[in-house]
Amino acid sequence: MKVKVGINGYGTIGKRVAWAVNRQEDLEIVGVTKTRPSYEASSALREGLQLYAAHQEDAENFQNAGITTNGTLDDLLGRVDLMVDCTPGGVGERYKPLYDKAGVKSIFQGGEGHELTGISFNALANYHEAWGAPSVRVVSCNTTGLVRTLFPLQQSFGIQKVFASLVRRGADPADKKGAALNALEPSLKLPTHHGPDVRTVMQGLDIQTMAVMAPTTLMHLHCVVVELKEKVSEKEVLEAWSSAPRVRIVSGKEGIKNTGQVMELAKDLGRPRGDLMDIAVWKEGVRVVDSTLYYYQAIHQESDVVPENVDCIRSMMKLEKDNLASIERTDLAIGLR
Amino acid sequence: MKVKVGINGYGTIGKRVAWAVNRQEDLEIVGVTKTRPSYEASSALREGLQLYAAHQEDAENFQNAGITTNGTLDDLLGRVDLMVDCTPGGVGERYKPLYDKAGVKSIFQGGEGHELTGISFNALANYHEAWGAPSVRVVSCNTTGLVRTLFPLQQSFGIQKVFASLVRRGADPADKKGAALNALEPSLKLPTHHGPDVRTVMQGLDIQTMAVMAPTTLMHLHCVVVELKEKVSEKEVLEAWSSAPRVRIVSGKEGIKNTGQVMELAKDLGRPRGDLMDIAVWKEGVRVVDSTLYYYQAIHQESDVVPENVDCIRSMMKLEKDNLASIERTDLAIGLR
Amino acid sequence: MKVKVGINGYGTIGKRVAWAVNRQEDLEIVGVTKTRPSYEASSALREGLQLYAAHQEDAENFQNAGITTNGTLDDLLGRVDLMVDCTPGGVGERYKPLYDKAGVKSIFQGGEGHELTGISFNALANYHEAWGAPSVRVVSCNTTGLVRTLFPLQQSFGIQKVFASLVRRGADPADKKGAALNALEPSLKLPTHHGPDVRTVMQGLDIQTMAVMAPTTLMHLHCVVVELKEKVSEKEVLEAWSSAPRVRIVSGKEGIKNTGQVMELAKDLGRPRGDLMDIAVWKEGVRVVDSTLYYYQAIHQESDVVPENVDCIRSMMKLEKDNLASIERTDLAIGLR
Amino acid sequence: MKVKVGINGYGTIGKRVAWAVNRQEDLEIVGVTKTRPSYEASSALREGLQLYAAHQEDAENFQNAGITTNGTLDDLLGRVDLMVDCTPGGVGERYKPLYDKAGVKSIFQGGEGHELTGISFNALANYHEAWGAPSVRVVSCNTTGLVRTLFPLQQSFGIQKVFASLVRRGADPADKKGAALNALEPSLKLPTHHGPDVRTVMQGLDIQTMAVMAPTTLMHLHCVVVELKEKVSEKEVLEAWSSAPRVRIVSGKEGIKNTGQVMELAKDLGRPRGDLMDIAVWKEGVRVVDSTLYYYQAIHQESDVVPENVDCIRSMMKLEKDNLASIERTDLAIGLR
Repeated sequence: MKVKVGINGYGTIGKRVAWAVNRQEDLEIVGVTKTRPSYEASSALREGLQLYAAHQEDAENFQNAGITTNGTLDDLLGRVDLMVDCTPGGVGERYKPLYDKAGVKSIFQGGEGHELTGISFNALANYHEAWGAPSVRVVSCNTTGLVRTLFPLQQSFGIQKVFASLVRRGADPADKKGAALNALEPSLKLPTHHGPDVRTVMQGLDIQTMAVMAPTTLMHLHCVVVELKEKVSEKEVLEAWSSAPRVRIVSGKEGIKNTGQVMELAKDLGRPRGDLMDIAVWKEGVRVVDSTLYYYQAIHQESDVVPENVDCIRSMMKLEKDNLASIERTDLAIGLR
Repeated sequence: MKVKVGINGYGTIGKRVAWAVNRQEDLEIVGVTKTRPSYEASSALREGLQLYAAHQEDAENFQNAGITTNGTLDDLLGRVDLMVDCTPGGVGERYKPLYDKAGVKSIFQGGEGHELTGISFNALANYHEAWGAPSVRVVSCNTTGLVRTLFPLQQSFGIQKVFASLVRRGADPADKKGAALNALEPSLKLPTHHGPDVRTVMQGLDIQTMAVMAPTTLMHLHCVVVELKEKVSEKEVLEAWSSAPRVRIVSGKEGIKNTGQVMELAKDLGRPRGDLMDIAVWKEGVRVVDSTLYYYQAIHQESDVVPENVDCIRSMMKLEKDNLASIERTDLAIGLR
Repeated sequence: MKVKVGINGYGTIGKRVAWAVNRQEDLEIVGVTKTRPSYEASSALREGLQLYAAHQEDAENFQNAGITTNGTLDDLLGRVDLMVDCTPGGVGERYKPLYDKAGVKSIFQGGEGHELTGISFNALANYHEAWGAPSVRVVSCNTTGLVRTLFPLQQSFGIQKVFASLVRRGADPADKKGAALNALEPSLKLPTHHGPDVRTVMQGLDIQTMAVMAPTTLMHLHCVVVELKEKVSEKEVLEAWSSAPRVRIVSGKEGIKNTGQVMELAKDLGRPRGDLMDIAVWKEGVRVVDSTLYYYQAIHQESDVVPENVDCIRSMMKLEKDNLASIERTDLAIGLR
Repeated sequence: MKVKVGINGYGTIGKRVAWAVNRQEDLEIVGVTKTRPSYEASSALREGLQLYAAHQEDAENFQNAGITTNGTLDDLLGRVDLMVDCTPGGVGERYKPLYDKAGVKSIFQGGEGHELTGISFNALANYHEAWGAPSVRVVSCNTTGLVRTLFPLQQSFGIQKVFASLVRRGADPADKKGAALNALEPSLKLPTHHGPDVRTVMQGLDIQTMAVMAPTTLMHLHCVVVELKEKVSEKEVLEAWSSAPRVRIVSGKEGIKNTGQVMELAKDLGRPRGDLMDIAVWKEGVRVVDSTLYYYQAIHQESDVVPENVDCIRSMMKLEKDNLASIERTDLAIGLR
């Protein structure tokens, strides 16, 4: 019997997680919530998903718009084993008491604080920490990106120290978040939250970060500097990543020079929605000077955490002991391999 | 037996046409050409397509890059019934003598002039003109967009006169065409070529156009003013489009307010590559004052001509007499319906 | 003795109007208000202007920030003959009762409705309507732009009908107004407010408008179609504008092809802040077909209304009977001629 | 008697240097060259500058356009003591033999290589190296920016090591350089040239750099990490910069949060063309952890090297022995103080 999963918030992340969960043989989506009868609500129905109004007071709006719902969040909570909270950052924590009260396990996204659940998750780095847990947070897109490439380096060579500067996309393609149209904006609160956030899954890592927001919608781009514990060659570094899951080496020489071309590759790969769930690292941008490694990586903020959510469910529901086995099952089911 | 089709130029348009042709039961792609061993060449192979070097001198580059080709364009010409030329605008005309010499029919894109073939094509407006023809031009993305919405209006109500101002995207998402990053640029040569181009498929239409380039990559957006021959209601106009193929009504009230959200809808619809091959018309933006109609439409410049190429092949190869039947077959095969 | 002017709201428009007023021999700025102790408040002091807290409760914030104010808006109202309200759109109407109560004349900007004052103003088209009036609205940047080029056409040739499509800048350079970073957004409410707004100063003009927001910060760009009452040559049209104030003919052949280059010209002209207070019309983009005129114009949204505010003061304070004389005095004082 | 200066290339840098030189009491512009009769050529004449055709064959174009020139570059070379080469990057080196042959000193910009002159210049760091030299290169905008803030740190505290990641603007406001409209593009050649370039003026500095191009036109933004030789407080760092020339501390709390607002400040300061010739450092973005300093700085690529060119002339012409005295004279004359 499949584990029954609900999604609270069928937006950028929610719709992708719903899609990915429904493609797993051991999981199924029972329903998704939406606050408003928008085109995304219609999309959920078109996908064959059952729709629930987030709140009782929203239900009427759906009715007026002629969109059928199967009840409210409360009803959905009675029908699932686990909820994946995909509400906007900071909103999830308001829902946690409801999930807890209903006796339903819950996953939150990186917009919530680590303290909300006490457990932050990355499938490669600390899958076991979520084992059987009632409530877990999947770290943000940027943190997921950093962990995906740093963890293999730590395993293979040991890490002394990390510095990363993050050039952040200003808003998602279909979003208006108030980024300046033609300006760069530094995150003045230093260190930015990204370093401490990486430490929620890679305890004790010495990492500092800075961040700049740029007027682009496609991807974040990181400049990463890693002082390794040993001297390595660029080839060894690339090999460490080649065997790591959800890292994809791209090449400027083959015509992939910017994030627009990285996303074009994702489309060429036939990925659903044109998403790139893996982290793109530029082959020619990997450089080692003594034992210091420099590299660039691009993060598709809309999708990289999606497979992590799937693995997190497996660990919390004790469906698969081995993290690499879960990763493989997830990725095969959604076409990442 | 399927009609054998080759693609010259596996880029933005070429790769989409290849995909669409291969999904038709009466057509098949025999091979595609590429000038350089880029990631797009690798994508072609990954798709199971046979790759040909555009020129003899390119062949070596592929070999050096370890990419297998099946020969050159000359070889491909010997194996196909029809070539779809998807080379950059203005380049196609240099290839026409080769296609002609090989006795192979040819389709060109809107970047070429009407005179090259003497026949310009839109599946709805003048399918029959391409019947059995040796060489046809499929009109550009903007012209296709205008014809898709104007032709049904002309059929239903009669058109006195049209004015359209086109806000053009500066470059495609993976492209760098030299658009200014933060400026608007008018097409100073008036009238722009768009009006005369519409007349290549809708003879005699009184249409004037102006155009402005904007720093965006997603879609073109047209403001269209049509003086109709009779007074109509907005509802009648929307009905005329509802029954027209490849026109999609979108709604600001349902959350689709800009071209970013139109493209998000395309992804939600599960469209390959996240493309929107139909023309998006905003429901709330349709307005009739006396017998003058105002409306906005958005054109996905990378993909709207793709199904037109398929229909054009059918007409040229005399595979299907009825244009609406061809349109339906094409659209069903690629998931537009 | 100079007329004493106050500015409520020292932001994008307010600081420019303050600068321009202070350069007139018959006008002087007594003080400007600000709600917050920002860098713009410091700039006002650096300019030698006296600063007033917009509200009593703001006064403390200035004190805490170590910025000296000369009192509050109430104090300022007691010291001026006329207030220019430069608060954000829709906010001005809340202040009108205060101005009225203080017996101070007031000017509002185009973000307010025509009904607020019953008189809308353009120096060229209807200067006399503001004569001695207690309260007047200077029309918006886009309306000002349309009137500057349409009025001379109406005077010279007569206008049958106008259609304009406006490509609007998404936000000002130092602003974050929530425009989408990489999308085009049509104004779905048709007709847009621009047409009726033009009629507040050019009564009875038959004009329809559509508008699209683009991700750029520099200027608006209009595509204008005018059915004239007589056949004219392109040369005659250009001559009509050459003798009109605050219209500047630019040329693509001389390297001014987009709004980035128009603004570069403004800098080359030594204009303060790099502003272009005149409307830029492209010489090569002027085209007449029969008696229909097509042209492109660019509007610097931050500054084109600035000299209009100065002339409006003169008319309201009965300082100068002749509008062209006022325009000349204004323009000479601020370097437009 | 004033030193006679010519400018080869009246573009982005050339017109600014011409303006700044002409405001110095010991220097004067004799003439400027231009290749084409564009609006910028007209601007030069409007500024009262004498115009020279870059080449004999260009002279005719000016004549046809009705623009008066005073001869060609060859003529200009006979009338000056020193040429400032402001031709596009990499072009300057082709002109050097002409300058040398004419016995005229020459200054090149950062687009040329260090080897061209053997001396690279920053007024603060190595003014004396240009003393009496025949030919000197003023380093690029990014290098100038790094040196302006790093040199004071080195003087005050000593520097162990520097890492900087540069978020580069894609093109200048009036330019179309082919930057992608909505993508981020890393400089894949590592280390980027910026580190070695800093060492041309700060010999022996241990510095590494990475760079990412973003779709913005206003400024570059640097994330800088400096390992200092001693522990310092953030206050001490800010003090070191306060007393350094051409560094300006800006504050997010005062409303300057992004590069759009930095440039707005420059306009509020009444700077010519709205340029910010000083380097902007964010007060709240300065952070020290142990002896590692993190900070953000913004560089106005169009103008920061302008005063450096003036000082460079003084050193080469032996007009002023003390660099700080030259810097002060330059800055006072152009309103930087």
